[in-house]
Amino acid sequence: MATDPLRLGIAGLGTVGGGVVRLIEDHRALLAERLGREVVITRISARDRSRERPFDVAAYGWVDDPVDLATVDDVDVVVELIGGSDGPALALVRGALAAGRPVVTANKALLAHHGAALAAVAEKTGAMLAYEAAVAGGIPVVKALREGLIANRLTRIAGILNGTCNYILSRMEATGAEFADVLAEAQAHGYAEADPAFDIEGTDAAHKLTILATLGYGAAVDFGQLHVEGITSITADDIAFARELGYRIKLLGIAESDGNGIAARVHPTLVAHHTPLAEVDGVYNAVQIEGEPVGRLFLEGPGAGAGPTASAVVADLCYVAWNTDAEGPSSAPVYMKHAANLVTGDLRPMSDHVGRFYIRLNVIDRPGVMAAVTEVFARHAVSLESIIQRKRDADAPVPIVLMTHEAREAVMQAAIGEIGRLEAVTAPPCLIRLETM
Amino acid sequence: MATDPLRLGIAGLGTVGGGVVRLIEDHRALLAERLGREVVITRISARDRSRERPFDVAAYGWVDDPVDLATVDDVDVVVELIGGSDGPALALVRGALAAGRPVVTANKALLAHHGAALAAVAEKTGAMLAYEAAVAGGIPVVKALREGLIANRLTRIAGILNGTCNYILSRMEATGAEFADVLAEAQAHGYAEADPAFDIEGTDAAHKLTILATLGYGAAVDFGQLHVEGITSITADDIAFARELGYRIKLLGIAESDGNGIAARVHPTLVAHHTPLAEVDGVYNAVQIEGEPVGRLFLEGPGAGAGPTASAVVADLCYVAWNTDAEGPSSAPVYMKHAANLVTGDLRPMSDHVGRFYIRLNVIDRPGVMAAVTEVFARHAVSLESIIQRKRDADAPVPIVLMTHEAREAVMQAAIGEIGRLEAVTAPPCLIRLETM
Repeated sequence: MATDPLRLGIAGLGTVGGGVVRLIEDHRALLAERLGREVVITRISARDRSRERPFDVAAYGWVDDPVDLATVDDVDVVVELIGGSDGPALALVRGALAAGRPVVTANKALLAHHGAALAAVAEKTGAMLAYEAAVAGGIPVVKALREGLIANRLTRIAGILNGTCNYILSRMEATGAEFADVLAEAQAHGYAEADPAFDIEGTDAAHKLTILATLGYGAAVDFGQLHVEGITSITADDIAFARELGYRIKLLGIAESDGNGIAARVHPTLVAHHTPLAEVDGVYNAVQIEGEPVGRLFLEGPGAGAGPTASAVVADLCYVAWNTDAEGPSSAPVYMKHAANLVTGDLRPMSDHVGRFYIRLNVIDRPGVMAAVTEVFARHAVSLESIIQRKRDADAPVPIVLMTHEAREAVMQAAIGEIGRLEAVTAPPCLIRLETM
Repeated sequence: MATDPLRLGIAGLGTVGGGVVRLIEDHRALLAERLGREVVITRISARDRSRERPFDVAAYGWVDDPVDLATVDDVDVVVELIGGSDGPALALVRGALAAGRPVVTANKALLAHHGAALAAVAEKTGAMLAYEAAVAGGIPVVKALREGLIANRLTRIAGILNGTCNYILSRMEATGAEFADVLAEAQAHGYAEADPAFDIEGTDAAHKLTILATLGYGAAVDFGQLHVEGITSITADDIAFARELGYRIKLLGIAESDGNGIAARVHPTLVAHHTPLAEVDGVYNAVQIEGEPVGRLFLEGPGAGAGPTASAVVADLCYVAWNTDAEGPSSAPVYMKHAANLVTGDLRPMSDHVGRFYIRLNVIDRPGVMAAVTEVFARHAVSLESIIQRKRDADAPVPIVLMTHEAREAVMQAAIGEIGRLEAVTAPPCLIRLETM
């Protein structure tokens, strides 16, 4: 068992990087006692050395080019917190793993795009690649899937994977405000980035879902094949109608496997009140995992921020400290099984999805509209569960909401395409999928 | 990296043992693919070979004395599912660890009583001791604490750790029935044992809490020092009053640390509606963990049963398979830090507990009773938040419910001792603690 200090080289000193440095400084004695060896930062690297930071930059050896951390000789583990799927993050991680140096990263974009390839490099050299912080912040969901549930055949992984979206949807429900106003408020509070596209269009959640699906189903999931929708078209009306019908709207990432293929999708979803995912409020993240023989698990916690993310990064560092000894390289796979055994093949196309749907139409309020709409659904053999038209207005379009029984996605798209072309329908129909939890 | 089969010796073939054998048989190919080596059962042992079992006993080598599995030569890992804190379970686990043979166990009583001592043996020989299945069934909470949250200073661990009690309390709330009737129903459905004392008196939850506290706070917690109350004195009235006041009653195990000592207690608890623990229904288990810097995590899942428990046992076996190689013994500690570093010392006495209280008195309904009761609280400087007397009855005692502001346990006990001796009070006061989540 190694007792010499574990020497870190940290690349990227933004919110998460700063949090990691602070955590290692603040909990130095606690970590040393738990690990039986010290954790020390020997090298740091970031774009701008002179920026104001919550720790003393001069206390650590500065490296101008982060990629040098892959090979510099006083570093045992590389901590990659630069971000981005390519560029220096990829060069650093690939270089370190190829050199047999373990890597801890919080970079979901990198893993979503290059995870399987990096796992192959890591397993070839025996260098560990750990990424707990890449998904759901402080929730140890990677460990739960990779190790805790390894004996299970998983059937569904469904999660609230983006805190910004969950905050916006929660505030829309609490205040009745429209999306754009709540987004502006979230930006003012620092819960949304100045450029929020990455979050609100679902990309961030899709990165995380790709990692969870690769892990849980042992498949080299192609990020580009995920069906991804964000929350930008959700209105205050939708939230109010959903509540009336007994649901809340959440941006979920859902990956399913029935043994005949894997489906993975990110979209706003109606989730029944009082189910665990429906009750997750604000910036929290949560993941529901179903498998055989375990049944249903639910994990909830802070999904982002310096503290929770640093908690996950340093947990991975401890795992590396425990498991890398002079005696030999790691034998554990990066995902739930070795990279060479990861299943390849296409995800199931979204057009094959079968589920229930909520559809909101904005229509001119006149006789015959309901008949025209229901006729289209009938012709496509889509069976309706309910139709609600609450408002009446002779001068402006009014919303009609329909809930369907189970239908195939391709059929639904054809039906609402046709409905969107009806003369009385004034805007593209809004379709939200319902997920039974 | 080892590629030879991992050979198991399984002791104990009850519900959990049968579940483990079935899981290893059913998921043989899946496990081999994920681990890169086969998992095979070479030896089994139980009290009665001829009992009807859900698998073919003749397929495996029978061992009459389970303790022989510690040393028999075709076993790599011992799986101890006998149960009980002493006797053959202890002899087998201690013997195997002393011989350098890894052990996977689901035995919470064994770990609650002998965990620190067994950890010392394991760490001396480098044999792994894994016990995910001992706490909260299918929820990987041991892994979450031991590894996922290792970088945190934990402040509170609070859990619903006994599915039988949670089932009974949930049913009492749903039906309005009294404890004894719901217990009988639970026994009929197989959710409670014929001898339910171990569950309903809180012992089982206390075993699990001892393990969580040892793990989370790095302390050799003495099981005998825990404050333990069960649910046998909870009435339908209590559940109805709690609901009226905005709470549900749950049997919680709570372990706290503020850096100046550890408190650990198991008792019925008022938990505010819509907090995660309050929403856990039926036989599910759940654990809320709070720490710095991670914040608050919540994990929920099936807490017992053959499938979920087997999921946890086999996860530990996989962890052993990944981490025991010819190159050398394990370096990781059994708890969050090495046994030699576990803090010893007394738990904080329950009399020091400070919190809010719910008190139900059964009193004779006549003028002056309320004045007499409130006078006692006033004299002990216990501040009341509310008093409710809903029923009026000239012929039979009626319940009065009081909610206090924060008070010290020792003071409360003195006050309700005095109140219990008032002439108008017809039964011992029922006191339920409130926990803010």
